[in-house]
Amino acid sequence: MKIPFDAKKLDTLMEEAGVDLVLATSKHNCQYLLGGYRFFFFAHLDAIGLSRYLPAVGILRGRHDAAFYIGNSMERWQQAGEPLWVGAVRNASWSSVQTAKEAAALIRERGLAKGTVAVEESFLPADAMAALKTELPQVRCVEALPILEALRAIKRPDELVLLKEASGAIVDSMVAVARSATPGITTREIAERMHKEEAQRGLNFEYALVATGPSSNRAPSEARWERGSGLSIDSGGNRRGYIGDLARMAVFGKATPLMRDLLEEVRVVQAAARTAIRAGGPGGGVYEAALAAQATCPHAKDIVFLAHGMGLISHEAPHLTDSGVVPYPGSHAQRPLEKDMVLSVETELTHPEAGFVKLEDTVVVTADGWEAYGDRARDWIEMDA
Amino acid sequence: MKIPFDAKKLDTLMEEAGVDLVLATSKHNCQYLLGGYRFFFFAHLDAIGLSRYLPAVGILRGRHDAAFYIGNSMERWQQAGEPLWVGAVRNASWSSVQTAKEAAALIRERGLAKGTVAVEESFLPADAMAALKTELPQVRCVEALPILEALRAIKRPDELVLLKEASGAIVDSMVAVARSATPGITTREIAERMHKEEAQRGLNFEYALVATGPSSNRAPSEARWERGSGLSIDSGGNRRGYIGDLARMAVFGKATPLMRDLLEEVRVVQAAARTAIRAGGPGGGVYEAALAAQATCPHAKDIVFLAHGMGLISHEAPHLTDSGVVPYPGSHAQRPLEKDMVLSVETELTHPEAGFVKLEDTVVVTADGWEAYGDRARDWIEMDA
Repeated sequence: MKIPFDAKKLDTLMEEAGVDLVLATSKHNCQYLLGGYRFFFFAHLDAIGLSRYLPAVGILRGRHDAAFYIGNSMERWQQAGEPLWVGAVRNASWSSVQTAKEAAALIRERGLAKGTVAVEESFLPADAMAALKTELPQVRCVEALPILEALRAIKRPDELVLLKEASGAIVDSMVAVARSATPGITTREIAERMHKEEAQRGLNFEYALVATGPSSNRAPSEARWERGSGLSIDSGGNRRGYIGDLARMAVFGKATPLMRDLLEEVRVVQAAARTAIRAGGPGGGVYEAALAAQATCPHAKDIVFLAHGMGLISHEAPHLTDSGVVPYPGSHAQRPLEKDMVLSVETELTHPEAGFVKLEDTVVVTADGWEAYGDRARDWIEMDA
Repeated sequence: MKIPFDAKKLDTLMEEAGVDLVLATSKHNCQYLLGGYRFFFFAHLDAIGLSRYLPAVGILRGRHDAAFYIGNSMERWQQAGEPLWVGAVRNASWSSVQTAKEAAALIRERGLAKGTVAVEESFLPADAMAALKTELPQVRCVEALPILEALRAIKRPDELVLLKEASGAIVDSMVAVARSATPGITTREIAERMHKEEAQRGLNFEYALVATGPSSNRAPSEARWERGSGLSIDSGGNRRGYIGDLARMAVFGKATPLMRDLLEEVRVVQAAARTAIRAGGPGGGVYEAALAAQATCPHAKDIVFLAHGMGLISHEAPHLTDSGVVPYPGSHAQRPLEKDMVLSVETELTHPEAGFVKLEDTVVVTADGWEAYGDRARDWIEMDA
């Protein structure tokens, strides 16, 4: 069977890092390395019994025929319809320690008992790490995240399809929720309706950040969306693991001139960011363009701009800056964007009267520019009230 | 504020285990110790940026005023509406290592740098464990699971309400999906409709195991549910973390006499199990009664019986046997059941012609017997076809 990722790129990344074997244990990286396969029973759950579900994919540098997968006993059902490309499949584990012991045995069989193994240190439980080290005391463990993140940064066509579907479904859900609401609805009810609308559109709901009135508190609560007030909805949901994450604005009645002006400032910053998005352009250019536009805005000091890669997780490579809420190394700030990287581009404005005003868009890097997914309803969604 | 769990019981469990501090890092145990609070943004997600979300709750034996919580920066929004009972709240972490370092500082401040700390070894990432040991080289770490599982085994009234709602919503979803289906529907479409129906009823969908025809493969697939064939649906979904997990049977047209007989065997075993469920009865009695009834069934050798505790996770204390699919120590086999423990009771029968026949019920231990949640639609759901 065909290897579902860029095996040559992975070999190069592993060689650069001096790694003999990558051992992925997060659901998102196992899914990626298995070409979309994620065991349905534990797609959302982890805990069971006295331990947890822990899948593991092992890929050896230059020896792809020696790759392996460790899953749960029930996975044979799913694999009957979705055969895996890896040669060795052990559907044998009911715990993190069992997974680690199976992995250790497979690593030893492959002659790597003294090798360098890249593990996901934030997705490998402590007891599994301890078991791995007990079984293979001479193995050297290093962090797999930079390798796997770089491998995932350029999306395949089938991944782009899922991201496009997810983005569109998020926006359609927001419009449906806004249009079905009546004045006085709580932000908690808005979030619950987002869950239902996303599920109807085939998404796995993840969260809805909702703010209304002058408050910038975005936790769903008993706060009520009233006539004349703005509503910010920022929601994430995934389609087969691929995340849609966008933000839109709504109002009962007509947006005031102030509200229009504020959203226009946000749109100006978002548009400026897009001008810097194209294959070959430096990643840091996205921030430069956006921040230059921000500086011209009347409410510049109340605006926060953010852009980052997205895909199977909501913040991933390419990382375009060192600043921002999440402390990333600015790994792509000086390096060129590549075709089929996917960016989440966000601008938020906090105003003491109008409240929280935000747009978030999903923008794909193309050969000569960009394509935005779910790129609609970016003005105030105005409802009769 | 009131401590939302049985603090005296936790002190006793910690004393028996020689533990000074429990450090919970799984979402389910953090939620439990915080009385239902779970940060909405990461309720479903874990991965973000170069690491992951990792909450932590620290509870000190006999010093509940020194308890602490470590969360993400955005959690202050939710806590504005849902204040936490713990005295020290640090909404400061964007990674597993940051959480571990914050926890280490709080543990040191509390004079426990040389103490015994119970951690969730399958829910504490390897990098967090390493950071904890670097910061506190003299701390002794032991496994927290037996303590926390025992603490959760007897459900509070508010937990029972959620479990009842979840169970009812699962069964109602199954009936709705069966009634909306037409012959030829795939088991994948059945599972997708279960997701939508559960979401409409306020549940977080987790999985649907679906089998039809003579096959006992329960992975959703392109297999079609046809006229005259049975359909087994076994689905889990949670309401604010509390799991509903039940299984029911449906058929297009009328169940054949064979199908009726097989489901009746399953019902006989399920009913026998219930006769042994009451406060004070030995946990192992549930298996004894069920297995005795199974032995009288014509298809005894094709029947598998399973019973286990459930709540925030789908297999938890009380553990009633050493056998079964998941290798549990039989910790409650010889010990009495207690009022407000919640059991999942499952009987499955695999038949070469009629296929997979299963009922799974949620049964609560009461003072003088039991109460079953969602206890309907336990006969063949027969649809005109």
